[in-house]
Amino acid sequence: MRYYTFGDEPSISPDEFFMEEALREARQALAEDEIPIGAVVVAKGKIIGRGHNLTERLTDVSAHAEMQALTAAANYIGGKYLKDCTLYVTMEPCVMCAGASYWFQIGRIVFGAYDTRMGFGRINQKITHPKTLITGGIKENECAELVRDFFKSKRMKKG
Amino acid sequence: MRYYTFGDEPSISPDEFFMEEALREARQALAEDEIPIGAVVVAKGKIIGRGHNLTERLTDVSAHAEMQALTAAANYIGGKYLKDCTLYVTMEPCVMCAGASYWFQIGRIVFGAYDTRMGFGRINQKITHPKTLITGGIKENECAELVRDFFKSKRMKKG
Repeated sequence: MRYYTFGDEPSISPDEFFMEEALREARQALAEDEIPIGAVVVAKGKIIGRGHNLTERLTDVSAHAEMQALTAAANYIGGKYLKDCTLYVTMEPCVMCAGASYWFQIGRIVFGAYDTRMGFGRINQKITHPKTLITGGIKENECAELVRDFFKSKRMKKG
Repeated sequence: MRYYTFGDEPSISPDEFFMEEALREARQALAEDEIPIGAVVVAKGKIIGRGHNLTERLTDVSAHAEMQALTAAANYIGGKYLKDCTLYVTMEPCVMCAGASYWFQIGRIVFGAYDTRMGFGRINQKITHPKTLITGGIKENECAELVRDFFKSKRMKKG
């Protein structure tokens, strides 16, 4: 496994490196008062698509971070499929996004926090593409905390 | 049940009436050399969103008819949810589109042709919203034939 190193900092894995980029997108969502979920699509070590949740801004409940990043990546390469690409997303994708990843034939999905309620992992059948590899739990706490804090502050404002 | 009548023509049910509108969208897709699937979203007997498959034109494998029609409808009403609306679509929605319909909380889905391979019906768990009613098989043959003929002519061109 290759590791990126930055001077004296402890080395981090590529998955952690790119999840940090997805987290950067999530923080951007937070700054826009959106549910803080972010995603990037990576091909050969390069980010070719980015996105964060835009459901409020677009008044579109389907404007999830993954949908933005996947379509941006396909747009960038000018092709339909993302077979050799990895989707990094701070939260376990929902059924819609997992279903979208099937059509894009994404090579791999790496997610941060698990979502036991809405995540596609609750579906017992395979709904991602047969060739898609899945890794969960990268920077899990950081990804989960961002969303948890967001909803906590929303509830406090309401209360 | 109310029926729309048109002069001497035999009366048709509202479901058949609006499926015919979805078929109109599908035929538009066909004219654009897209997989001929169409959809409309109806609220109180009025079409508030239309769409057809745009995967080729947009080079976006997620640009399904349902996604277009659902976002168009939400855009039209300026709200997030489509609780009192019906989605008419010529083909059984895939997992992605069924997952999207969950987020829109669509009141009802009426589809034409069954899709045993990619349709959401292959999933044993409920992936649409708990309150979403489902009807399949409206104008089934007409909807299926359109897609079947499309792929047949594609294969003939290739061969």
